Amino acid sequence: VDRDTLVRWLDEYLGTGSYADLSLNGLQIEGTGVIRRVAASVDTSVKTLQSAADSGADLLLVHHGLFWGQPLALRGPHRTRVRTALMADLNLYAAHLPLDAHPEVGNNAMIARALSLGNLQPFGEAAGRQIGLAGELPFAQSLQDFADRVQKLTGEICLVHGGGIPQVQRLGVLSGSGAGAVAEAAALGLDTLLTGEPEHKHFHDAFEYGVNVVFAGHYETEVFGVRALAARLEEEFGLPWQFLHHPTGL
Amino acid sequence: VDRDTLVRWLDEYLGTGSYADLSLNGLQIEGTGVIRRVAASVDTSVKTLQSAADSGADLLLVHHGLFWGQPLALRGPHRTRVRTALMADLNLYAAHLPLDAHPEVGNNAMIARALSLGNLQPFGEAAGRQIGLAGELPFAQSLQDFADRVQKLTGEICLVHGGGIPQVQRLGVLSGSGAGAVAEAAALGLDTLLTGEPEHKHFHDAFEYGVNVVFAGHYETEVFGVRALAARLEEEFGLPWQFLHHPTGL
Amino acid sequence: VDRDTLVRWLDEYLGTGSYADLSLNGLQIEGTGVIRRVAASVDTSVKTLQSAADSGADLLLVHHGLFWGQPLALRGPHRTRVRTALMADLNLYAAHLPLDAHPEVGNNAMIARALSLGNLQPFGEAAGRQIGLAGELPFAQSLQDFADRVQKLTGEICLVHGGGIPQVQRLGVLSGSGAGAVAEAAALGLDTLLTGEPEHKHFHDAFEYGVNVVFAGHYETEVFGVRALAARLEEEFGLPWQFLHHPTGL
Amino acid sequence: VDRDTLVRWLDEYLGTGSYADLSLNGLQIEGTGVIRRVAASVDTSVKTLQSAADSGADLLLVHHGLFWGQPLALRGPHRTRVRTALMADLNLYAAHLPLDAHPEVGNNAMIARALSLGNLQPFGEAAGRQIGLAGELPFAQSLQDFADRVQKLTGEICLVHGGGIPQVQRLGVLSGSGAGAVAEAAALGLDTLLTGEPEHKHFHDAFEYGVNVVFAGHYETEVFGVRALAARLEEEFGLPWQFLHHPTGL
Amino acid sequence: VDRDTLVRWLDEYLGTGSYADLSLNGLQIEGTGVIRRVAASVDTSVKTLQSAADSGADLLLVHHGLFWGQPLALRGPHRTRVRTALMADLNLYAAHLPLDAHPEVGNNAMIARALSLGNLQPFGEAAGRQIGLAGELPFAQSLQDFADRVQKLTGEICLVHGGGIPQVQRLGVLSGSGAGAVAEAAALGLDTLLTGEPEHKHFHDAFEYGVNVVFAGHYETEVFGVRALAARLEEEFGLPWQFLHHPTGL
Amino acid sequence: VDRDTLVRWLDEYLGTGSYADLSLNGLQIEGTGVIRRVAASVDTSVKTLQSAADSGADLLLVHHGLFWGQPLALRGPHRTRVRTALMADLNLYAAHLPLDAHPEVGNNAMIARALSLGNLQPFGEAAGRQIGLAGELPFAQSLQDFADRVQKLTGEICLVHGGGIPQVQRLGVLSGSGAGAVAEAAALGLDTLLTGEPEHKHFHDAFEYGVNVVFAGHYETEVFGVRALAARLEEEFGLPWQFLHHPTGL
Repeated sequence: VDRDTLVRWLDEYLGTGSYADLSLNGLQIEGTGVIRRVAASVDTSVKTLQSAADSGADLLLVHHGLFWGQPLALRGPHRTRVRTALMADLNLYAAHLPLDAHPEVGNNAMIARALSLGNLQPFGEAAGRQIGLAGELPFAQSLQDFADRVQKLTGEICLVHGGGIPQVQRLGVLSGSGAGAVAEAAALGLDTLLTGEPEHKHFHDAFEYGVNVVFAGHYETEVFGVRALAARLEEEFGLPWQFLHHPTGL
Repeated sequence: VDRDTLVRWLDEYLGTGSYADLSLNGLQIEGTGVIRRVAASVDTSVKTLQSAADSGADLLLVHHGLFWGQPLALRGPHRTRVRTALMADLNLYAAHLPLDAHPEVGNNAMIARALSLGNLQPFGEAAGRQIGLAGELPFAQSLQDFADRVQKLTGEICLVHGGGIPQVQRLGVLSGSGAGAVAEAAALGLDTLLTGEPEHKHFHDAFEYGVNVVFAGHYETEVFGVRALAARLEEEFGLPWQFLHHPTGL
Repeated sequence: VDRDTLVRWLDEYLGTGSYADLSLNGLQIEGTGVIRRVAASVDTSVKTLQSAADSGADLLLVHHGLFWGQPLALRGPHRTRVRTALMADLNLYAAHLPLDAHPEVGNNAMIARALSLGNLQPFGEAAGRQIGLAGELPFAQSLQDFADRVQKLTGEICLVHGGGIPQVQRLGVLSGSGAGAVAEAAALGLDTLLTGEPEHKHFHDAFEYGVNVVFAGHYETEVFGVRALAARLEEEFGLPWQFLHHPTGL
Repeated sequence: VDRDTLVRWLDEYLGTGSYADLSLNGLQIEGTGVIRRVAASVDTSVKTLQSAADSGADLLLVHHGLFWGQPLALRGPHRTRVRTALMADLNLYAAHLPLDAHPEVGNNAMIARALSLGNLQPFGEAAGRQIGLAGELPFAQSLQDFADRVQKLTGEICLVHGGGIPQVQRLGVLSGSGAGAVAEAAALGLDTLLTGEPEHKHFHDAFEYGVNVVFAGHYETEVFGVRALAARLEEEFGLPWQFLHHPTGL
Repeated sequence: VDRDTLVRWLDEYLGTGSYADLSLNGLQIEGTGVIRRVAASVDTSVKTLQSAADSGADLLLVHHGLFWGQPLALRGPHRTRVRTALMADLNLYAAHLPLDAHPEVGNNAMIARALSLGNLQPFGEAAGRQIGLAGELPFAQSLQDFADRVQKLTGEICLVHGGGIPQVQRLGVLSGSGAGAVAEAAALGLDTLLTGEPEHKHFHDAFEYGVNVVFAGHYETEVFGVRALAARLEEEFGLPWQFLHHPTGL
Repeated sequence: VDRDTLVRWLDEYLGTGSYADLSLNGLQIEGTGVIRRVAASVDTSVKTLQSAADSGADLLLVHHGLFWGQPLALRGPHRTRVRTALMADLNLYAAHLPLDAHPEVGNNAMIARALSLGNLQPFGEAAGRQIGLAGELPFAQSLQDFADRVQKLTGEICLVHGGGIPQVQRLGVLSGSGAGAVAEAAALGLDTLLTGEPEHKHFHDAFEYGVNVVFAGHYETEVFGVRALAARLEEEFGLPWQFLHHPTGL
């Protein structure tokens, strides 16, 4: 499919222009004009770019792109990343907050669906919008069982801060860096927050607000969106795709 | 000792007023007018405040206080924290960046001394100043030996990202949240960065800049400053003191 | 009534969250969980807080609360104010601009009603909204008669700057600190501005724009809102209440 | 004397360019090129401008000029003020903070001298600088005697808020709008603050910080600077001058 | 016609208050109260103001007024400009972005009409809005023929940067300083941009984006709006008017 | 010479880090590690980058680089520019304000020297510093003779706005876009301003301030700095160099 057609479709489908995001969302690097194969990854490192190029992809879809807030000189690793894409004529499309928040393919929508969450409502403020979801599990589980279930979903052990009651039913889901959302979870009467990455400065919140926090990993909670978006592109345009798995353990 | 005398001494010794810090550094909560006993802790949680009060301390010295950037209503845990201090007539003194950066009792100066670092130079920008230190170990060590040595210092296992050469000699030290300083370390020709807390968004930096990063924990790298400052107060004013250890594992 | 229910009702009734106000409007200090008795006052001083506690109130409604724009250390009077509320388990609810502007219980709506003002229209910009009211008296009065009538309403002598025609009919009402609204009053063709507190820097406006200004006192023009709001709570929840009168003469 | 020479002298003598002041300090309106006679007033109203012109002055020195922070359309009174100056070829020179703070002719220096204040130190922050003075009276006086003495100095009755001990010796002087400086006065151990204009929002400070506040009037505390500056010009350039007294009672 | 009536009509017709414009749009200088004759010019110089006064106009309509973003002292030429208007009792009304963007009398709407442009759509961002127009010529022309046609319209030779195909059909029109709109033109698939003033920093854009740029002069592209607005006033209020032509060659 | 050595030398020689410049001054794109040949140009276009690469240069020195203020996606011409440099392993070093202001090789120092200007003083504010020079010609010339002399220097005809006396002796020099400096020139008593690019909005300044302005072209006034800097590198490091002349006529 023609690159410009695909980019217009993505911009519209994701509402790329409507977020006050530090990330420069959209087509960050222009490559070849026809897209025949897609790769998807969470981050944009030299390795993911090279893997994408080696796999024959014409477009790499990422959650974390290369341009954030201020211009950087093309020196060191930043130069290598950009150069790798340009030498391979690889297109790089980044969707940060739009891919956390999207109701169909967003990280949080995908996790909520995988956990059969019902009665969904907006949750998790970032840049003046709510990009996560709160909802209810079909039936209550012990905190341990819930953490095991999340582990099955991601394949990685969770860090659990058991600040609340030992049962999980009313859940807030906020992919990536959501440790600061405990107060919002408590205000909504949630018993548990499922997020990605812990932060020292929010450690005591779980225990003092009385909310359980399950940290499933920044990386692990953000594989869902790019995979679902790539699958959606296959559906729409018949493009084959591949997920490039480069976990960070964080 | 009289509280106001002590506060003036601390403000001057630490240069409290000279940092563009989000933290409202200085005496955050006024308690009893005479200080006979001091407690020190990294964070200010309900538990640390209660422990300080229970231990008979009149002053709690902390690295992370209660007031940051904008006013908060006194509701939920924030109210409980403030109330705990006020009910116990406990003074709360917070020193954030001033206690990372202080040349005698700062977190980074203390770690540098413990590791016998020589040829010290400023390193690690925060809020327009350099609050950490770079220097040289007396002799080179393998990365594993160095991590073991740090573990002996803190008592906790380190997370190691071996992005550089397997030997450690030129070291940057930046307590707390310093994962973003890899580029600065590389520019200075350091082989290794010792810091506290990892961040997903800086994961690839270690490997692409070719710098080892040893994460010893946000909490564990920030116990040094408050302890040294309390000891300095004992020296200056003969005040007994106690460190309240409430590790976060982060 | 349950405190959280009451706070939710107030937040919604007043539209607390919709003002770009320096005041941290809403529940500023959390106290006891059940509200049985209410006190209301214009300001939050140690005295008003202590009177509220002594009167057995569980909630103090105020126009001027304790938190404005930036965090303050809890030292000196600010500490005493907070401590007084916390020791008495008193809830403190502040409504600043929302209680100037409210169409039913707002300071300006109450004054307009007391003066039988008709043909009301928005007037008096603050923080990008109009929080006062302009309107017409049923019949014209001399400026002296009008000032006497306002004096009967508040019990205090007014300061009068007779810059306009000696008759009052088209009136702008702006409680508190509204001396800067003379130009807006002139643009609307009003003959008189009724406000609270004079300011040297706007002295010449009255005479040069040709608008009468009647200063009835910052305090005296702002007793109306908190009293009306407390009465509204009695109506809604059957709560007894009391107004704590601590005039400032300003 | 040549207008440009005089303006250069004033800019340098007052350090006009060195204040982060909302007031556009300096020559605000250019008039005739030769200055033979000077008028001085606190404010710039149509009346003061017309009086200056009628008195034959070529230059009007003011504390409060016509341009502050943002451009205003020349409509209504602002137009009349500007037009009055331009029609009369009158030069208008404004010095706001520079004339509060000047060590020789500043409002606060003049008041301190009139009260024989000793051990002077900077006091009273405005726009990041201290523009007032703190000092000691040669001997302590009762608050009432002190207020009487200030009344003799200005000719107007003072408003007194007796929040502190009934004796005055350690004094802070801050001309104009200084009601907010009570906390700073308390921190310096002053017993009394002498300032110009009261403000409702700072009413309780006097009583809760335990500091006396004597309000001598915004206008009355700011006649000193412009008069002293005009006298200094007479000394330097032999120019006759006249003070235009248009009190506001505020 | 009464001046205030006319100003209200203009403010509403032009939507003067709705633009985030550096220009202080609206009545900038108030003159005589009755308008009998109108003058219009692009800029506000001493000459245009004097010509307007000499022509017996009571109101001068301009695109570029005297007040922009920050207050200026009335010294030198700025004083002379203001003084000229005030001495002549001339009203000065400025409409900057509102008169580029207006759908009936705006500079761009007038040019689009003169060129018979069809399929109009918004184009040319300034201050968060689109103030220009894109559209299609009825039939394609060579770039040279198009430039000749523009020259006939304005009377001045155009500077042409032939970066695109040598035929003009899809056109963007942006009066004044629009050299920075080449990227936007390329994104919309336009072949040619017609604007006013060139800028060195955008020189290479035409050639690298492959878009023709025809520079017809900042002045020459902005005579249309003020003339059309004056004609509209004649239609509405029967006021005679005159255009004051003071070209700048830029 | 080693690239990093050269970059450090340039950063220090030019004081690259000390300017609050929108331009990201310094090494903007990293290329090959050893510099054997240098190219210099005013702008960075696809053509200048390709010419530099074709000429065998390892480093292109420019006045106007590729990164300004905010991050741009690598699409269209911006991508082609970056790609051209990266494919050729070309280093790109940009020095904007530092190369206007440098006392030895700056654009303005070079022009002042070429015109034998004496009694030099700082002139021409940009980003809070003065980056141009004012001075005196050894003897006065007619404005026409002066313009001819400038034309001989640059090879291009100047645009002359003869607002002042017809003789040139006291001169302000401000390379590039300096049309806004007429008021500053008048305040310093200069008779003539020599700058690069005219701007419609400053057209009337020359005539109303009574200052001649000679516009020698943005491009033509900025060839001096990069050429002198390249020559300085040859002197210091023995590197051959070449100036790439791509005039814009602006």
